Amino acid sequence: MSTRPFAEQGPDIDIEKGTAFAPRFDRDGLIGAIVTDARSGEVLMFAYMNQDALQATMESRIAHFWSRSRGKLWRKGEESGNLLNVEELRVDCDQDVLWLKVLVSGAGVACHTGARSCFYRSAALGEAADGRLTMDAKQGKQPKTP
Amino acid sequence: MSTRPFAEQGPDIDIEKGTAFAPRFDRDGLIGAIVTDARSGEVLMFAYMNQDALQATMESRIAHFWSRSRGKLWRKGEESGNLLNVEELRVDCDQDVLWLKVLVSGAGVACHTGARSCFYRSAALGEAADGRLTMDAKQGKQPKTP
Repeated sequence: MSTRPFAEQGPDIDIEKGTAFAPRFDRDGLIGAIVTDARSGEVLMFAYMNQDALQATMESRIAHFWSRSRGKLWRKGEESGNLLNVEELRVDCDQDVLWLKVLVSGAGVACHTGARSCFYRSAALGEAADGRLTMDAKQGKQPKTP
Repeated sequence: MSTRPFAEQGPDIDIEKGTAFAPRFDRDGLIGAIVTDARSGEVLMFAYMNQDALQATMESRIAHFWSRSRGKLWRKGEESGNLLNVEELRVDCDQDVLWLKVLVSGAGVACHTGARSCFYRSAALGEAADGRLTMDAKQGKQPKTP
């Protein structure tokens, strides 16, 4: 691969206030990425990138991740056609989490279960908190409406 | 504390399709939580919870986290007044990431730098990717407009 489009963290880099992109990969060489729908703002999924996945994502503008279960680089949607087209890439204050705003190709489904978003269940809070989840009625295998 | 408002993961629980809230804590006993603004949908921050933090969050509807740097339970905003009032708590398909939709109290600032969101910088993509970040013009120390 070509030169990485990001730097190593070091004493000469102002992580919080600077303009050098110097993502912090954890002890496993990974950084978490929050993926939201660029139009609706809905959180679609959360996955991990290693350095190669981040570089491939930035160069191709198609989201790539590191599959921890399969131990390989993973171009999300390469089999289903639901590729994630990256509109915007953001990083947080201490540069240890990424935020990708994407447009989903194909059927618009981001979750392997067939749901549009992986976050298709909510938990009750406060007095009502009983350890049960409520499934979204509108989620399911139907494609996203345009 | 009282009985936990969530279950242990086990063979009798359908993690993906079931309605039992059985969050998966990692080898450090933590689970990541994505925090978005319940009104704008903007991602504000990402932090970690242990079991006590999740229980306190669910019972009080005020977000609590585990501070990895300080090694203690952390009621976000307890000093600044920028408490995170949890409107909705969601969990992803394999129940290893949480999503909190919140309303921020006080000055509406979620980041310790004084920015409304921790994600105040974006990285260039594709041909333009040069390892530099662009700071949001509208971010800063000014309070959120209502």
